[in-house]
Amino acid sequence: MAGSTFGTLFRVTTAGESHGPGNVVIVDGCPPGLELSEADLIPDLQRRKPGQSRITTPRKEDDAPEILSGVFEGHTTGTPIAVLIRNQDQRSRDYGDIKDKYRPGHADFTFDAKFGRRDYRGGGRSSARETTARVAAGAIARKLLGQRLGIGVLGMVDQVGDLHADIPDPGAVTLEQVEANPVRCPDPAAAEKMEQLIKDVRKQQDSIGGAARLVATGVPAGWGEPVFDKLRADLGKAMFSLPAVMGVEFGEGFAVAHARGSGHCDTLVPAPGKAPPIGTTTNRAGGMLGGISNGMPIVLRCAVKPTSSIPQDRPTVDRDGKETVIATRGRHDPCLLPRFVPMAEAMVLLVLADHFLRQAAVQG
Amino acid sequence: MAGSTFGTLFRVTTAGESHGPGNVVIVDGCPPGLELSEADLIPDLQRRKPGQSRITTPRKEDDAPEILSGVFEGHTTGTPIAVLIRNQDQRSRDYGDIKDKYRPGHADFTFDAKFGRRDYRGGGRSSARETTARVAAGAIARKLLGQRLGIGVLGMVDQVGDLHADIPDPGAVTLEQVEANPVRCPDPAAAEKMEQLIKDVRKQQDSIGGAARLVATGVPAGWGEPVFDKLRADLGKAMFSLPAVMGVEFGEGFAVAHARGSGHCDTLVPAPGKAPPIGTTTNRAGGMLGGISNGMPIVLRCAVKPTSSIPQDRPTVDRDGKETVIATRGRHDPCLLPRFVPMAEAMVLLVLADHFLRQAAVQG
Amino acid sequence: MAGSTFGTLFRVTTAGESHGPGNVVIVDGCPPGLELSEADLIPDLQRRKPGQSRITTPRKEDDAPEILSGVFEGHTTGTPIAVLIRNQDQRSRDYGDIKDKYRPGHADFTFDAKFGRRDYRGGGRSSARETTARVAAGAIARKLLGQRLGIGVLGMVDQVGDLHADIPDPGAVTLEQVEANPVRCPDPAAAEKMEQLIKDVRKQQDSIGGAARLVATGVPAGWGEPVFDKLRADLGKAMFSLPAVMGVEFGEGFAVAHARGSGHCDTLVPAPGKAPPIGTTTNRAGGMLGGISNGMPIVLRCAVKPTSSIPQDRPTVDRDGKETVIATRGRHDPCLLPRFVPMAEAMVLLVLADHFLRQAAVQG
Amino acid sequence: MAGSTFGTLFRVTTAGESHGPGNVVIVDGCPPGLELSEADLIPDLQRRKPGQSRITTPRKEDDAPEILSGVFEGHTTGTPIAVLIRNQDQRSRDYGDIKDKYRPGHADFTFDAKFGRRDYRGGGRSSARETTARVAAGAIARKLLGQRLGIGVLGMVDQVGDLHADIPDPGAVTLEQVEANPVRCPDPAAAEKMEQLIKDVRKQQDSIGGAARLVATGVPAGWGEPVFDKLRADLGKAMFSLPAVMGVEFGEGFAVAHARGSGHCDTLVPAPGKAPPIGTTTNRAGGMLGGISNGMPIVLRCAVKPTSSIPQDRPTVDRDGKETVIATRGRHDPCLLPRFVPMAEAMVLLVLADHFLRQAAVQG
Repeated sequence: MAGSTFGTLFRVTTAGESHGPGNVVIVDGCPPGLELSEADLIPDLQRRKPGQSRITTPRKEDDAPEILSGVFEGHTTGTPIAVLIRNQDQRSRDYGDIKDKYRPGHADFTFDAKFGRRDYRGGGRSSARETTARVAAGAIARKLLGQRLGIGVLGMVDQVGDLHADIPDPGAVTLEQVEANPVRCPDPAAAEKMEQLIKDVRKQQDSIGGAARLVATGVPAGWGEPVFDKLRADLGKAMFSLPAVMGVEFGEGFAVAHARGSGHCDTLVPAPGKAPPIGTTTNRAGGMLGGISNGMPIVLRCAVKPTSSIPQDRPTVDRDGKETVIATRGRHDPCLLPRFVPMAEAMVLLVLADHFLRQAAVQG
Repeated sequence: MAGSTFGTLFRVTTAGESHGPGNVVIVDGCPPGLELSEADLIPDLQRRKPGQSRITTPRKEDDAPEILSGVFEGHTTGTPIAVLIRNQDQRSRDYGDIKDKYRPGHADFTFDAKFGRRDYRGGGRSSARETTARVAAGAIARKLLGQRLGIGVLGMVDQVGDLHADIPDPGAVTLEQVEANPVRCPDPAAAEKMEQLIKDVRKQQDSIGGAARLVATGVPAGWGEPVFDKLRADLGKAMFSLPAVMGVEFGEGFAVAHARGSGHCDTLVPAPGKAPPIGTTTNRAGGMLGGISNGMPIVLRCAVKPTSSIPQDRPTVDRDGKETVIATRGRHDPCLLPRFVPMAEAMVLLVLADHFLRQAAVQG
Repeated sequence: MAGSTFGTLFRVTTAGESHGPGNVVIVDGCPPGLELSEADLIPDLQRRKPGQSRITTPRKEDDAPEILSGVFEGHTTGTPIAVLIRNQDQRSRDYGDIKDKYRPGHADFTFDAKFGRRDYRGGGRSSARETTARVAAGAIARKLLGQRLGIGVLGMVDQVGDLHADIPDPGAVTLEQVEANPVRCPDPAAAEKMEQLIKDVRKQQDSIGGAARLVATGVPAGWGEPVFDKLRADLGKAMFSLPAVMGVEFGEGFAVAHARGSGHCDTLVPAPGKAPPIGTTTNRAGGMLGGISNGMPIVLRCAVKPTSSIPQDRPTVDRDGKETVIATRGRHDPCLLPRFVPMAEAMVLLVLADHFLRQAAVQG
Repeated sequence: MAGSTFGTLFRVTTAGESHGPGNVVIVDGCPPGLELSEADLIPDLQRRKPGQSRITTPRKEDDAPEILSGVFEGHTTGTPIAVLIRNQDQRSRDYGDIKDKYRPGHADFTFDAKFGRRDYRGGGRSSARETTARVAAGAIARKLLGQRLGIGVLGMVDQVGDLHADIPDPGAVTLEQVEANPVRCPDPAAAEKMEQLIKDVRKQQDSIGGAARLVATGVPAGWGEPVFDKLRADLGKAMFSLPAVMGVEFGEGFAVAHARGSGHCDTLVPAPGKAPPIGTTTNRAGGMLGGISNGMPIVLRCAVKPTSSIPQDRPTVDRDGKETVIATRGRHDPCLLPRFVPMAEAMVLLVLADHFLRQAAVQG
């Protein structure tokens, strides 16, 4: 596999570069009979778009999706759904510097090492622009999981630099709370400070990292496979496939390194009304045991690095390995986190949709 | 896919339960002409075995591997290599409690939720016993990568509870340093304290978590695919597929949440003698950019929870969801980390072997 | 997998219906550095198009391909190549009969049985229109295999009804000979009779079957995998995945049922200049032994049924299983064979491109 | 994929050579709760074994299967089922001639061209011995499909050389009729002549080809995927993956080349009691339309070449491409067809089990 396909039964294949004609996604395996139109894709694509606020880059991407197949009379037919999102701004520009010099922290050098050439316009395939295709596919998964099973997936920023949000119950946060501020942090006090910090960082011609939390509610017990395709493993892969993710943790995460077994284990208790009628008192495991969902909310957290594109001159090398200096042009997010949220939600949704179908096949 | 196959071209399929006849692995896609015998598998299997020291469980597992195919006249033939590792101790025992009650922190409940039944003997397929198959496959990958490319993969414990090791240059640590103490921590002073802590925890009938670092040296630039199958993503999945892993981070990891772009980026510099002749001054990225290897050591770190099997009576529920109390019998590791090291090395090796072959196909 | 992806390393995913907005194909895994533009796709798409002669349906399909990604500065970049071929004629029509009645010999009933609904416009996804996507992908494979290895793939009609062509050496036939007549039969005398037969069949408001031969020259020895993914098996699947194919045979094909071992085996002889320098005196095996290519031309043959769309009233059932009568409207090919040739070539090319890359990975 | 895995959800991976320690198969994805023991595998393995009659080779293969995993308390658990079938006769012999010379009609040359080396003992991985693993897996699929859905799969020889059997209704043939004679031909008169012909051929130190028909009854409408993974395509691949198969046809097969659309199409009619209540008057299509099952019996036919192993001296080349003469030793089937029947049944069963699970996932 050449790496642009994700999933086994809810199977997503993407193509597209930052400054080519457009990005395409084919979703193969979506069940038939789901009501679907372009309108279902637009909200998540809008959330992913740059230029939504003063703390994200004001680049213009129109992101109007066109469904090319797999939908008939307003419903999915069970055949592959192709979605095209054209790139707006394909004018020929002067990319001179990026063409021959390697930007530090970017994939310019590694793409050349891999392929011997690269589409250097705006990062080409390594640009976060490719996540439009993922977000479009994720919106289909969201509708499927929401309508059929009442599953909800929500992301939220919980750290920017040294600022931490106070989110007592991530599973209870609403989309409205997340979207109430440009940082996408449901703690309004923290959000305000984070917004100010991001503005300060931008003024300093710098960028800053952070972390986001993702929560999936309504996932029934039993999803995920015992060994390699644990739900945790597929979610971990999904998160690490996103640009700039340097760490992923589930439930208590890295804090388990300090924990004792007597304190860490979630106690199993009767949960009348659930099927099966079993729950846990706490959710330190993050909703999975042995990599299989246990019916509790799935909770994970991602660390996202500061964007490497900062408007400063920096030393680097050119294609021949000679020392040089590069200046990054263009406008870039000083903090990736707000726009990371819908991208990460999309990947969680794709993993869940896939395991939904996989579990449907277990008993035959 | 039902979840017991891993990899695209270096393709590993496992089967086996804790207390069934044995564990089997089929490695399909190993290049022909590699010198190989059972003797190559034994060292890693020995490292994985319980009962090697006073701080791991004294359970007896013999772990003698038998190569059933794919090797002829002492060399691999290019056809699938099957390895069988029989389980030693299959006596019929009284598993009464585990049969009907769910152990907290274990996959008993989730297996039942998934399959409607489970092999409850010693955890069945959810037991860490299944990692023997991974370790055997990893030993084949180790030989391939070592002989052909000089790649080395080494794991080491760097945290147990609140004790942190001081490992200034993980890429310079040797196998001998790791194996010099039962904790598998290359910092001797820390190792001694960790060993004492683990003994104390055992006396308290408790268990404790920790973290391990993995380093791969000699990986050339260019491995990994641009979007979903980033090397980072496949490594992340590999780690999260191992039992008890709750967090994974690459390079600076979660510390990037605090970082500025101006400080985080590794500066590209000439590296005469390398192919291509480019390196970085620092390795905060952990050896990958855009998910593709950049020729620097690949560095990652995993958080491992304290084992849930502690010899204390604990409240839980039975299969019918009724409250009950369960006592864990048998002998279990008070700290999983020492034995986690060879398991994690195996998974890193499998990912690298797969991307080695994938990269070989890129240009056709 | 939901069935719209083909290949392991040269990986093709298609989407699209007969009367939706368009057909899309994503080719993932094409090596970088291949000169490519839309102009390379047009010849094969033109050959596939209806309305090229008096013996194919005069339906209008414009089939102008647009490359959306994966090509930069006139060359492939190694990232996925997406191609969009819009459908021209999407006017809303009266599909009343097809909507509620099942056409005999078509997939109307089986799509409903599978999905519970279907896009009934012109056959939807079961229409041969979907093969435009395959032909576009095949044209990319053709360029890759031709430029890198000198491999050529050519199809030809060798039977229509009871008329058989005389093709003494299929491996020596040229594209010009095939394209010299509308039947795509390189035996001019037979072609003339076949053309007349097809015209007669059309006048009789009927359709007729036939057979085509495919030849691949220049394939080196060693392609194909030993057991399930034999080159023969993947070619067989490829052919049977095309509409209307009811039989596939390699080399001597069904004639082997009559053969003796003493007479059937091709004798191995020295072949100086080849690498390795070994050939066979005859090619009864069709270019493969044990499912792996032996350096001789790969020769196969497909039986194609008469199209089920004939302009006659016929008894059938409706969606409720009640008896009714259906009349097929629209204009359809009275013989599928001439247009089958480029579709079948495309599938052979896709299989070969995939095994080219797979073989490149064997030694690592 | 390295070619030893088959299927998407009912996923079979095999390993093993003719004269190595044994053959192994891992079946991943078999639903839990199926009653299963070694006794279920033995009948099909016995049918595949050589030495069952005077017209098959008297080689001794014991073929006692051992289930190593995935079965607990007499039932499948949903985890992978590994089966080991040890090879009996592994004495070191003199394989001198085969080691350095290429047998005509065998894969000796192509394996060397592919891998640069081969296990030459008895054909190694290219020996039909590897089909024991397939037959064991097929027996599991047989039990699953039989118990859950009442599906039956039966093969029968219908041609040996110029002798054709008269089988008016292949769907009505019973296992008893097939097993009533050593040829596995349900037409007793033809069987007798075929047996005599095979004996004559053996006396002439020669071998002979033939054909077998396979029938699957009870397959519901709706299995198979629209484009590449048509049920017909996967069955075609399955058959061509078996040794010696040179042709495959469904329903009317190659006869469709002569057919008219008016005569070929099966007429759809009400079929009260079926779900959905629709059938066809005839079954020229062989049980599929658009590659998706239509509820009628699935009927296919395979042409099998005469074995290339005949006890005659024949000209060939050695590894260096120099002319030489080779003598085939050992005892070989003068006609592969009788033993082909259980192998082909196994492959049909594996395809059906896979599409059973795939269809279970379609609606989620």
